[in-house]
Amino acid sequence: MSDLILSDHDEQIITAISRGDARACGRLISRAESDDESVVSILQALYMRGGNTPIIGITGPPGAGKSTLTDQLIERWRARGERIAVLAVDPSSPFSGGAILGDRVRMNRHNVDTGVFIRSMSARSRLGGLAAATGDTLTILDAMGFARILIETVGVGQNELEIMRHAHSVVILQTPGAGDVVQSVKAGLLEIGDVFAVNKADLPAADKVVTTLREAVAFRHDAHNPDDWQPPIVKTQSVEGTGVDELLAAIENHLQHQQQHPAQRMRRLRDQARARLLDLVSEGLRRRYASSAERQDNFEQQLDALLERRSDPHAAAWRVLGKI
Amino acid sequence: MSDLILSDHDEQIITAISRGDARACGRLISRAESDDESVVSILQALYMRGGNTPIIGITGPPGAGKSTLTDQLIERWRARGERIAVLAVDPSSPFSGGAILGDRVRMNRHNVDTGVFIRSMSARSRLGGLAAATGDTLTILDAMGFARILIETVGVGQNELEIMRHAHSVVILQTPGAGDVVQSVKAGLLEIGDVFAVNKADLPAADKVVTTLREAVAFRHDAHNPDDWQPPIVKTQSVEGTGVDELLAAIENHLQHQQQHPAQRMRRLRDQARARLLDLVSEGLRRRYASSAERQDNFEQQLDALLERRSDPHAAAWRVLGKI
Repeated sequence: MSDLILSDHDEQIITAISRGDARACGRLISRAESDDESVVSILQALYMRGGNTPIIGITGPPGAGKSTLTDQLIERWRARGERIAVLAVDPSSPFSGGAILGDRVRMNRHNVDTGVFIRSMSARSRLGGLAAATGDTLTILDAMGFARILIETVGVGQNELEIMRHAHSVVILQTPGAGDVVQSVKAGLLEIGDVFAVNKADLPAADKVVTTLREAVAFRHDAHNPDDWQPPIVKTQSVEGTGVDELLAAIENHLQHQQQHPAQRMRRLRDQARARLLDLVSEGLRRRYASSAERQDNFEQQLDALLERRSDPHAAAWRVLGKI
Repeated sequence: MSDLILSDHDEQIITAISRGDARACGRLISRAESDDESVVSILQALYMRGGNTPIIGITGPPGAGKSTLTDQLIERWRARGERIAVLAVDPSSPFSGGAILGDRVRMNRHNVDTGVFIRSMSARSRLGGLAAATGDTLTILDAMGFARILIETVGVGQNELEIMRHAHSVVILQTPGAGDVVQSVKAGLLEIGDVFAVNKADLPAADKVVTTLREAVAFRHDAHNPDDWQPPIVKTQSVEGTGVDELLAAIENHLQHQQQHPAQRMRRLRDQARARLLDLVSEGLRRRYASSAERQDNFEQQLDALLERRSDPHAAAWRVLGKI
């Protein structure tokens, strides 16, 4: 986009981000979160130069050992000398606030390692919604030149599915806990997983979970298409680090598979971009609507009718739409 | 609304719902969930006659004993001969699928009691989003003539806050588990709670949680306004049933307080109706947009520009909006 106007100060920020300056990165994310309009042109510049860092989503039920496993993965990447960013979109994650919570979890040792950038984000981070906030934060992290970006979310609810939209590879964590697999089916997680990890693999029911997952994944996999990615199922024991190397290999294999199948990769990226653009358009329509006094009056009249039960939400929405 | 056209069949369904027919209710909810357009006029008719059943939202972190406490509350109401509906919007709730999960939890004994109607709903229940689906289901349940409707959700994420929009009284469950209160602050739960329950009150840290909650609630409470509701904090031990009577009394007190302060009550209802209407309008705009071929072409062009990094999501959204 040639019509992008950047001030010298904006250019300085962009340079700092491109150099991987963690403080500049933290400040810019905070500005984006607070819906600071002046940030948009910086985000635009960063986005247009970006798209180079693989984003890995990790999700699973609370207590599945998600953070310990993420911790182990980071350790492996760090041992290879790679810089890693973690975006924790989970209010219950130890990433999200070790200091406030008061309990020093293992994860926080990475806080003193300048090769690991950790940022947490809660559902209330931004007015424009979590999905938009996550998108902007990832645009910034992507420009920082990390080797990998991890997004960690608790695997419950629609928000998590929306966040996984941003990932190039999605890891679904399961445990031999009763009902985990069933819950994942319900939450739609099986459909979006590229790699499955069955953690706490030392527990007796672990093999049963692997079998169930294998059957569920087979349904989805197109065996007649040799190019179709078959999601692997890896057994791990995160506390002892068992299976972590295999999990890391599975993730890297999937990222490589996408590089080798550009048409599949482009389809995925297009689907993700479509969802993200629809969100932003929808948010823009909402703002545009809210900026007209006449429309606001009509809206309040429809609200009155609703509260007096002279109308119902569907009819009221239809009438509001009629004035747009 | 006088222009509502109902077929004889629609009228029969409405009559069945008004009589409290559980099978008709279950079928109608399923139709609404599947985005069946023919259901809208029935929903409208039910909504315009409704608004009579108090809706109580119960939320709290996984493992806090939410279901056991809900179970105890239902038992108390049933002992008074009152019919109760439960809407579980939580994939990890035992309400949501006792039969599938295979573990028979206590809750399910209510399934054979015709005075208790239990319905579960997952984030994927409907295309139009969870908030819209919850609204329609509550419209149907409201018309069934229950004494109370309970909504149970896990207290994590934005969806839960949206669902609590529908409740006349919101109960926030906490435990002496480390970090619970901090997490609730982050999730914005303290701001929306009308009644707080500290469950597992036998644990040593329970009193500390009560103190922390009391301080947090005091911030919110306007001591200079005698009409302002001061959220009570009740200690419970759901397994033994300790404190459940006190919790029930606190909920009923809050409902009564709202009846006695119609201006406050109307303000709350109006805020809730506004949020619900905005959701439906936003969804309608999205659908309207998706129905124009020319707009679709423009949208796909913007997507191309995004994927080729010639544009960025904010600029693309702005250009899509320019064509609307």
